[in-house]
Amino acid sequence: IFPLNLLAQDPLPSWNEGATKQSIIDFVKAVTTEGSADFVPIPERIAIFDNDGTLWSEQPLYFQFLFAVDQVKVLAPKHPEWKTKEPFKSVLAGSMKGALAGGEKSLLAIMMATHAGMTTDVFNASVKEWIESAQHPKFKKLYTECVFQPMLEVLTYLRANGFKTFIVSGGDIDFMRVWAERVYGIPPEQIVGTKMKLKYQVVDGVPSLLRTPALSLLDDKEGKPVGIHEHIGRIPIAAFGNSDGDFQMLEYTTSASGKRLGLIVHHDDADREFAYDRQSKIGTLNKGLDEGPKRGWIIISMKNDWKKIFSFE
Amino acid sequence: IFPLNLLAQDPLPSWNEGATKQSIIDFVKAVTTEGSADFVPIPERIAIFDNDGTLWSEQPLYFQFLFAVDQVKVLAPKHPEWKTKEPFKSVLAGSMKGALAGGEKSLLAIMMATHAGMTTDVFNASVKEWIESAQHPKFKKLYTECVFQPMLEVLTYLRANGFKTFIVSGGDIDFMRVWAERVYGIPPEQIVGTKMKLKYQVVDGVPSLLRTPALSLLDDKEGKPVGIHEHIGRIPIAAFGNSDGDFQMLEYTTSASGKRLGLIVHHDDADREFAYDRQSKIGTLNKGLDEGPKRGWIIISMKNDWKKIFSFE
Ligand SMILES: [Ca+2]
Ligand SMILES: [Ca+2]
Repeated sequence: IFPLNLLAQDPLPSWNEGATKQSIIDFVKAVTTEGSADFVPIPERIAIFDNDGTLWSEQPLYFQFLFAVDQVKVLAPKHPEWKTKEPFKSVLAGSMKGALAGGEKSLLAIMMATHAGMTTDVFNASVKEWIESAQHPKFKKLYTECVFQPMLEVLTYLRANGFKTFIVSGGDIDFMRVWAERVYGIPPEQIVGTKMKLKYQVVDGVPSLLRTPALSLLDDKEGKPVGIHEHIGRIPIAAFGNSDGDFQMLEYTTSASGKRLGLIVHHDDADREFAYDRQSKIGTLNKGLDEGPKRGWIIISMKNDWKKIFSFE
Repeated sequence: IFPLNLLAQDPLPSWNEGATKQSIIDFVKAVTTEGSADFVPIPERIAIFDNDGTLWSEQPLYFQFLFAVDQVKVLAPKHPEWKTKEPFKSVLAGSMKGALAGGEKSLLAIMMATHAGMTTDVFNASVKEWIESAQHPKFKKLYTECVFQPMLEVLTYLRANGFKTFIVSGGDIDFMRVWAERVYGIPPEQIVGTKMKLKYQVVDGVPSLLRTPALSLLDDKEGKPVGIHEHIGRIPIAAFGNSDGDFQMLEYTTSASGKRLGLIVHHDDADREFAYDRQSKIGTLNKGLDEGPKRGWIIISMKNDWKKIFSFE
């Protein structure tokens, strides 16, 4: 009975024992122990999490972009002109290479065609339908199953210790809100993301919000501290990221006075998930690997620190 | 003992008995009674409150504008040119009439000079210093004492029943965050307001956010549902406002399906506070008085529904 009992008390069972796991537990003990010099009152226990590559996978392409590609096919009947117009023509022909030949401009065209020009209700319904049916090309699982079990345990562990957990992601705020409460236990009001400019309209007495084709906030890189201040209004005490897009968010969190925790998920497990960092176009991690440790940030090795990556393993 | 006990159980002791008070109590009972057709799960129990004129007074001028006027005097030594430049010259000479002679343009100049061009830390410190010392011209009390006791009771009552309470105000989001947690029990992450565009900067290794002279969101009228969606991400079930600037917020809240509650604080008590509505430039209430009741919104009469307005009475 004794060892089973001990096991049940481990708040992070999918983490291997070691310095990384211990640093998380030590941090939580320090900020929650009354009388400790590092004690933080409950309202200030704010922890933030990047989403793509930190809470769920992001390869072979950001899942939200895979949604956009599928949406082009769904919306095509209403856009006969796409049959001859790039990048839509290539998307419809199933050529991702052709679709992205135009670079940033093609990417933006695909995103705007699928993420703007409809109400938030219509957009949310399309995300819901997709997220409940589409499968990841490598894992053959729903995308919401491709979430990292060790990170779910961190979310639960922090909340059990009085933390409020927030997502701070470059992804679309509403794309995440559709499923994040169910999957991560994070409610819509605790999600910070890239936002389209919205327009309030009342049609036949029914109010709605139109997603216009312009950004209200690009919540990436130096936009992350802006999103944090806009939505949270105080500096978090812990931040989890995975790429150089999280550099400023980690810098903003860990530069403030008082006990702070910064971590970077390093994708170094090609067998169980994916391995990529400095050279990857998706989730580039370069500056963070060099400067992170100097700043006291902890690099999480998925290969060595995580006993299990997905619950379906 | 019996009557005292009953009194202690009254969640809204500063409200006179009557239809208005009963409508709030009936609503809370309906949405919190499990098995009731109107039951709402806790995560969806979101209530929003306008600030100026709803939670605290707004006459003779919005308190935030009175802060701006005082800030012009504080900042004047750094701006010798203001001695000869309107509207600053009039503000420094103590002539509010002269200061506002230029209309909207003068107002904007005063607001931008005092609300932009500094970091959020510097701005917050100036608000804190002012709010802890400046006094209301009529009541001779700190502005944070000019809050409505009946509304504080509503905030407490709703939270005791599983509601999350949010402010949705045309006022500056950071101006409110400095004192709203202490005064209303509403944390920074539950405050929605007008926002300046922020710029992340790192000077000598120290990160900060610069308040640039441009708006990210004007959280008033049709901007309120936009702010609600951006920050909360779901439609509130109860909304409290006081002017036509709250019309769209009330419309957005009460048009959605399921049990909803919309209320408008009507300033009709010149003796204890102020009396104004259709003709007032501050807190104009015109359309709401005519259309509100048709839409089922409740008009709160400060004179008749509130036993007490301020705790200092
Ligand atoms: Ca990421
Ligand atoms: Ca108001």
